[in-house]
Amino acid sequence: DGSGCGPGPSSSLAMDFPYLSQQHRDLMVELLSAVDERLGPHLLPSSVPPDVLSFQNEPGTCKGALDIRSGADGSTVDFILESWLHCELPFGVLDITTLFAFLSAETDAPHLLMEFIQNGPNSLILFMDLLPRRDLVLYPDYLDHFYQQTPLDKARQGLENAPEVAPYKSSSLYIRSVLSPTAVAVNINCGSEGASSMDEVMRDHVAAAAKEVIGVWLDKCACGERKVAESDRADLLKRDNLIKNKTVEIDLASNLPRLFGPDVAGRVVAAIQKAFGI
Amino acid sequence: DGSGCGPGPSSSLAMDFPYLSQQHRDLMVELLSAVDERLGPHLLPSSVPPDVLSFQNEPGTCKGALDIRSGADGSTVDFILESWLHCELPFGVLDITTLFAFLSAETDAPHLLMEFIQNGPNSLILFMDLLPRRDLVLYPDYLDHFYQQTPLDKARQGLENAPEVAPYKSSSLYIRSVLSPTAVAVNINCGSEGASSMDEVMRDHVAAAAKEVIGVWLDKCACGERKVAESDRADLLKRDNLIKNKTVEIDLASNLPRLFGPDVAGRVVAAIQKAFGI
Repeated sequence: DGSGCGPGPSSSLAMDFPYLSQQHRDLMVELLSAVDERLGPHLLPSSVPPDVLSFQNEPGTCKGALDIRSGADGSTVDFILESWLHCELPFGVLDITTLFAFLSAETDAPHLLMEFIQNGPNSLILFMDLLPRRDLVLYPDYLDHFYQQTPLDKARQGLENAPEVAPYKSSSLYIRSVLSPTAVAVNINCGSEGASSMDEVMRDHVAAAAKEVIGVWLDKCACGERKVAESDRADLLKRDNLIKNKTVEIDLASNLPRLFGPDVAGRVVAAIQKAFGI
Repeated sequence: DGSGCGPGPSSSLAMDFPYLSQQHRDLMVELLSAVDERLGPHLLPSSVPPDVLSFQNEPGTCKGALDIRSGADGSTVDFILESWLHCELPFGVLDITTLFAFLSAETDAPHLLMEFIQNGPNSLILFMDLLPRRDLVLYPDYLDHFYQQTPLDKARQGLENAPEVAPYKSSSLYIRSVLSPTAVAVNINCGSEGASSMDEVMRDHVAAAAKEVIGVWLDKCACGERKVAESDRADLLKRDNLIKNKTVEIDLASNLPRLFGPDVAGRVVAAIQKAFGI
């Protein structure tokens, strides 16, 4: 199966999410299993050293795990990044769980981004998107194929209809630019009177939307048959590399040193840059 | 002044907005005057025939006015479109007021879009944006220059902080794609208890944001000195033409026949297509 898609499990030991609630953990494991089941057999073994697979800061108040597996030859997967961070900060506990799956330039199908940023038990910022790899204004057929003809916007609407869920805008204009028009970018707040608990919102609303997004990505992107001509790949790579560089610059290079100190952060960022090929 | 920017008024007689509230009309006149004052002397006379400058349907329940002026030779303006529609429909009164200013391919500076869609006295959907002419992921400097280094996002935030104002998502994925990350896309609802009147929201919140957007566009886009090399213009024109075609297809070709009948709608759309050069 040249597209790198087939049955067979392959799990990552670091991804046990010891600090998440049962409901949140179950969902993350289910999402990663869905990816592993389809793509696992066509991924190379983990490419990160043990001290990046699991790491923590000096006082032990911040812990993290990061696994990156690259696609084997012939797979349309560039890499799959899974990570969690758990930080006890002066103003509360921060848990960030990330799934980032990048496809190779053999296809122009969207990448997958899922990020759960939990600020204490009542508050969650959630990004879920298939990141476009083309300028959607210049490629209306691409917009139609991946975003209009799929249930992505319906999944987003369903989630945003929950009373605890409100649209969220990243303060980074770059992140807003990189997201698709059907991106889930929401703030879930269970702190107000009468609101359901975070576990209930996770079970009743987030789970369905997340599974829909992963399902569309697996079926239509990672395992889709949308190939790109050799001559077109340089442009795709240029755009992909800009996304990779900006992701490291905005998301990691600014936050990790603050949380884990320069040494640990440097090690983790270096492992990511190596896997990203930047 | 080769950039097409200079003093001197030049008003369009059709743009008197007879059906808007005093507050809304005053704001529209002020916005159009700001554009006229800077760009008017460098525009050609109106290019639309009298039966498009002012038109209505057979029973007289829908009326409209449309003016389009193209930029003179040497101006960076492609055209400026101003219009209003007033329709008495079975479910209420609809007023749409539009200002759409397109720049030529001599510059890659953003176009201007302002659209006020009023569904009765308590409800207004508002779009205000500088439409990017580049893929912002591929051109981070462009994102920085026009969107990060300007007060556009602050103006959007200020408006969205008003209790009557909520983010609005167009049902069209294309429209969501074409907007910038600082676009004002909001639903203003004055129908709930304790809300201010639409005139108050217009005066206290919308006016400031609208003037800021127009100001940035005039200073940094229409009269900016950002020129594009001859060799780069074909790509810009291709993207601009896609925007023009989609605007006609989504915004006009589907709605105008329904409101004004096929004959009037055909005449209006033809005048727009001629001015658009598509």
